[in-house]
Amino acid sequence: MERADKGLAFMLQYENVAWYDSGEVRILDRRVYPRKVEFVVCKRHEEVAQAITDMVTQSAGPYTAAAMGMALAAHECRNMTQEEQFAYLEKASHTISHARPTTVERMKLVTEGSLAVAKQAILQGVDASQAIVDDTVVSNNIRYNKIGRMAGYLVDMFPDNGAVMTQCFGETIVGQMLRVARERGKNIRLFCPETRPYFQGARLTATVCHDMGFDVTVITDNMPAFVMQKEKIDVFTSAADVICLDGHVVNKVGTFQIAIVAKYMGIPYFVTGAPDKGHPTVDTINIEMRDPDFVLQAMGVKTAADGVKGYYPSFDVTPPHLVSGVVSDAGILSPYDLHRYFASGFEGEYTKKDLCV
Amino acid sequence: MERADKGLAFMLQYENVAWYDSGEVRILDRRVYPRKVEFVVCKRHEEVAQAITDMVTQSAGPYTAAAMGMALAAHECRNMTQEEQFAYLEKASHTISHARPTTVERMKLVTEGSLAVAKQAILQGVDASQAIVDDTVVSNNIRYNKIGRMAGYLVDMFPDNGAVMTQCFGETIVGQMLRVARERGKNIRLFCPETRPYFQGARLTATVCHDMGFDVTVITDNMPAFVMQKEKIDVFTSAADVICLDGHVVNKVGTFQIAIVAKYMGIPYFVTGAPDKGHPTVDTINIEMRDPDFVLQAMGVKTAADGVKGYYPSFDVTPPHLVSGVVSDAGILSPYDLHRYFASGFEGEYTKKDLCV
Repeated sequence: MERADKGLAFMLQYENVAWYDSGEVRILDRRVYPRKVEFVVCKRHEEVAQAITDMVTQSAGPYTAAAMGMALAAHECRNMTQEEQFAYLEKASHTISHARPTTVERMKLVTEGSLAVAKQAILQGVDASQAIVDDTVVSNNIRYNKIGRMAGYLVDMFPDNGAVMTQCFGETIVGQMLRVARERGKNIRLFCPETRPYFQGARLTATVCHDMGFDVTVITDNMPAFVMQKEKIDVFTSAADVICLDGHVVNKVGTFQIAIVAKYMGIPYFVTGAPDKGHPTVDTINIEMRDPDFVLQAMGVKTAADGVKGYYPSFDVTPPHLVSGVVSDAGILSPYDLHRYFASGFEGEYTKKDLCV
Repeated sequence: MERADKGLAFMLQYENVAWYDSGEVRILDRRVYPRKVEFVVCKRHEEVAQAITDMVTQSAGPYTAAAMGMALAAHECRNMTQEEQFAYLEKASHTISHARPTTVERMKLVTEGSLAVAKQAILQGVDASQAIVDDTVVSNNIRYNKIGRMAGYLVDMFPDNGAVMTQCFGETIVGQMLRVARERGKNIRLFCPETRPYFQGARLTATVCHDMGFDVTVITDNMPAFVMQKEKIDVFTSAADVICLDGHVVNKVGTFQIAIVAKYMGIPYFVTGAPDKGHPTVDTINIEMRDPDFVLQAMGVKTAADGVKGYYPSFDVTPPHLVSGVVSDAGILSPYDLHRYFASGFEGEYTKKDLCV
């Protein structure tokens, strides 16, 4: 595979993240990627659920994995009676959707969607596993096209020759952004803060940028101010876990402070995503505090002495006055005018809360 | 040893960092501290030089180690003729002072000082090793007292109950600050950004705070904005590698961005140290760029894929408008009025460039 295609394939989740084929689901093990490119191979849908629990894949990965787990379950019960198949798949949907306590509701959207597709296929006497795979391709394509439109608006904001700072791993939007930038011949250098404690910026964003043929530099999370000034960053951009209707942006911890620094430097900050009707104001946001000990290690090696405490807010909140624009599939919106998005007839994405672990 | 005393002893460099006794120099191996408390034991002064080269000790540690290496050299040549001893010690001074290319000039101040002390002792027929040890105690005490005065002024800025954010590892000032805060009964919680890529904040500052009995929390370098807001930080403080006479502060990369965020939050930033006559303006500062690959690993484990670039500025520069006060041994000065320090008859410290590796 060409290097650039490899990068895009990774981003688009088809070949490298989680896919069903011939009675097994292969999931890229992001816990060790990119140091090692290893796949967890699941022969049973319960193993897919366990892999999701074990954080083998993160970000949007678990949702594709969940659908593929349903395809595997459909394969497992293919020789049962119709009634047994329905019961088997309903149980599988429950098992897979409950793999991670914080994402049950959204997981159910995926597994119950797959369940409906499978039931219809069974009633029609066609291959239920293949029907789920086909359905996932279609819904992913709709999503990719939508994000492709966002990417177009975002790349409009880039100079022909310039430098862009990212934050965390926006997955599909990062891949689409790079594809569009390449198609338009924009010569963009990327600077990726490493995104402690999980190193998504270093491990994932930077790898994808490199695989797609871009000049990419990883910096530690204490360097954005220095780099913005010294390397003349043109644009700071991130995805979001939630964009509240009042313009507050919930994203991986660190986004807030880079946005403050960008404002200080006079550098615009564009967040990609759709406003979320489920979060009319920032008051609806509850910042999840994660295992504090995770901050006291790096790549599995302990950094601090016993008795020292850790602290791990998963997200932070950037207020609208630090946001230059919300780059949606309906164009670039002012963070103070997000109701316009729905007025234009757009529907928004599902809430991406907990996407970026 | 009591926990608090252990912390102070570490800070004061006597027992734990580098010391000469009975024909050997023991140097705390900071490369593995605090995961392991191990000492490199040097039986020859060349081994002390090698330990300095190998970064066994950092920050102010190499300078004490260098003096102790001279004490060891004096021990090695104690049975030679006076002329041979002088020649031997001159050679040792050269060897030790050239252990690290970037610190030769300042190292020479130390080793040539020890050389002079040793020569005088030899002429007087007293133990030259002991004379160097005694001289080091005296000059360290002068420095500690000076920094103790700074600590007093700094702690004046703390509330009786509050939270302080640090940056990197200011060594002696951190220990003195905590000692004074304890003496005055101030109930201070400490928040220490981990300070990538070397983790000085997590490994050293936090350990010392804990050992001295304070409530201390390590955060990753992308969390200061969140923590300042959520945990109601009262004061941000750091030491400095150089304080230019025009009020620009050169310190470990990350200081600049925390200072920007502190300003945004309305939190004062106090830098400790003395203005440096050798740097009348910021134009005299050359930010050393270090091995970029060091940023692509954490605690020795690679984080990014091959082909991704790293970036490692050792310091950054914080402009005076982000500095609330320069806390010197002559009191707290406006960053715009640093000449007052010398007008008061104070002399300043030596330049601490390259202290905080």
